[in-house]
Amino acid sequence: MKKEDKSKLEEFRRSIDNLDAALIYLVAERFRLTQQVGEYKRANNLPPADEGRESELIARLRQLASDSELDPDFAERLIRFIIDEVVRNHERIRAS
Amino acid sequence: MKKEDKSKLEEFRRSIDNLDAALIYLVAERFRLTQQVGEYKRANNLPPADEGRESELIARLRQLASDSELDPDFAERLIRFIIDEVVRNHERIRAS
Repeated sequence: MKKEDKSKLEEFRRSIDNLDAALIYLVAERFRLTQQVGEYKRANNLPPADEGRESELIARLRQLASDSELDPDFAERLIRFIIDEVVRNHERIRAS
Repeated sequence: MKKEDKSKLEEFRRSIDNLDAALIYLVAERFRLTQQVGEYKRANNLPPADEGRESELIARLRQLASDSELDPDFAERLIRFIIDEVVRNHERIRAS
């Protein structure tokens, strides 16, 4: 690889690294919130899942994805990937 | 559901919705960058994958996840989920 290519790639990668760090912190904070939701629901005997909420959330994120030129199908798969982990965590909270 | 429960849940959900919007915009921006990387690599005949880069990136994100009390295994699965989509996009760029 030429030196010039390497430094150009380095520039891109630094930006990607910055975004990834922000991403991890955001997702960590999202789990802190959903953890609190899980505990609140358990303490108040509320049902763990809410399908209406989930479909609204996904419809909204698909729209935001569209607005930011991210593939809405990918955005939906990504948020479902995160929500699946939230559900597993909530099941652990209920079982504890 | 009691009115009080509903408004408490509403509060949590608004915060989650705000984080999700930030998440979508961040991921959209990450794909804009990796799209540029893909085009740059194609234009300069550079190899599409770089395993050293990927393992460094993952090790770093696992550490950041640990620091922010996010499960590092989940963080790794999440970033691999995103990287897999990047690879599919790069293959489309190369094929086009």
